[in-house]
Amino acid sequence: MSVEGLRVMGIDPGLTRCGLSIVQAGRGRSVLPVVVGVAKTPVGAPLPQRLSQLSHDVSQWMDEYHPDVVAIERVFERGNVSTVMNTAHAVGVLMLAAAERGIEVYQYTPSEVKKSISGNGRADKKQMIAMVTRILALAEPPHPADAADAFALAICHCWRAPMIARQEAIAHRVAASAAKSK
Amino acid sequence: MSVEGLRVMGIDPGLTRCGLSIVQAGRGRSVLPVVVGVAKTPVGAPLPQRLSQLSHDVSQWMDEYHPDVVAIERVFERGNVSTVMNTAHAVGVLMLAAAERGIEVYQYTPSEVKKSISGNGRADKKQMIAMVTRILALAEPPHPADAADAFALAICHCWRAPMIARQEAIAHRVAASAAKSK
Repeated sequence: MSVEGLRVMGIDPGLTRCGLSIVQAGRGRSVLPVVVGVAKTPVGAPLPQRLSQLSHDVSQWMDEYHPDVVAIERVFERGNVSTVMNTAHAVGVLMLAAAERGIEVYQYTPSEVKKSISGNGRADKKQMIAMVTRILALAEPPHPADAADAFALAICHCWRAPMIARQEAIAHRVAASAAKSK
Repeated sequence: MSVEGLRVMGIDPGLTRCGLSIVQAGRGRSVLPVVVGVAKTPVGAPLPQRLSQLSHDVSQWMDEYHPDVVAIERVFERGNVSTVMNTAHAVGVLMLAAAERGIEVYQYTPSEVKKSISGNGRADKKQMIAMVTRILALAEPPHPADAADAFALAICHCWRAPMIARQEAIAHRVAASAAKSK
């Protein structure tokens, strides 16, 4: 199944820095970069105001670039507790922005993304930046450097989308034939 | 400092069941119940849709009851990882709804609430329900039972609000006199 033309927004969630990217699936496994950036909110500001600012910035991206799908990193309980919780709060707001626009959301773990992009679930930051630069045929590595993860998430979804579409088609056929035989 | 008339929304955050309450501060330490309930979202539905439904339900409460302040339970990393993450995503959406309406948000840990209401940071569910019923002078315990936590959070804020107001007034005076002496 071809997903050519599919427009994917990759989100590396965070409250202080949130990586955002837009890519478009091309022929075969080719992926075209559209835009990449980072949405920031001030560390000292109250949490509700930071979430509101993030929601506003991400909504603007969605309304400007009209992605078909959002691919977002799944948050894990590792590292600093308050950072993890802030990131999880941010994910809630990011998913809400997508849901309000009818944009489908897929979540990927960091190792799923690494494995998909580099073949190695434990690839380091440098390898990932090199792979993203090569896949998107960029003249130089993405800037800012932490925006590379947002690109990687979007590429990961482009490459998985045909398989997801096949699985959904099979599930749909199974459900339809089960309904028919009733 | 009196907080008489202050209208507080207590939120016991959750994605499957989210406890909601509204109380109003009376004279001294008296607190008057206004309404209590639970916002639910279907377990099997996609996460973004569940967050969207929760956002819609809580926004309706805020627009109907016009709380001055939201008191919400602080999420901790305990129990089932995916439940904790879902609750943290829900908190992001709840805080956003408050921020969009200019409603201030305060977070309290479960032990802060228990200590404030019962004098014991480790009070059990039964003790908490009994205390909430007595403080609000309810004819019978709050229904549903898990809505009692939402009442407890709101009462906790009513009782802490005078101290918070005093601290903010002092901080304001200190800042003003520092600005004057420049």
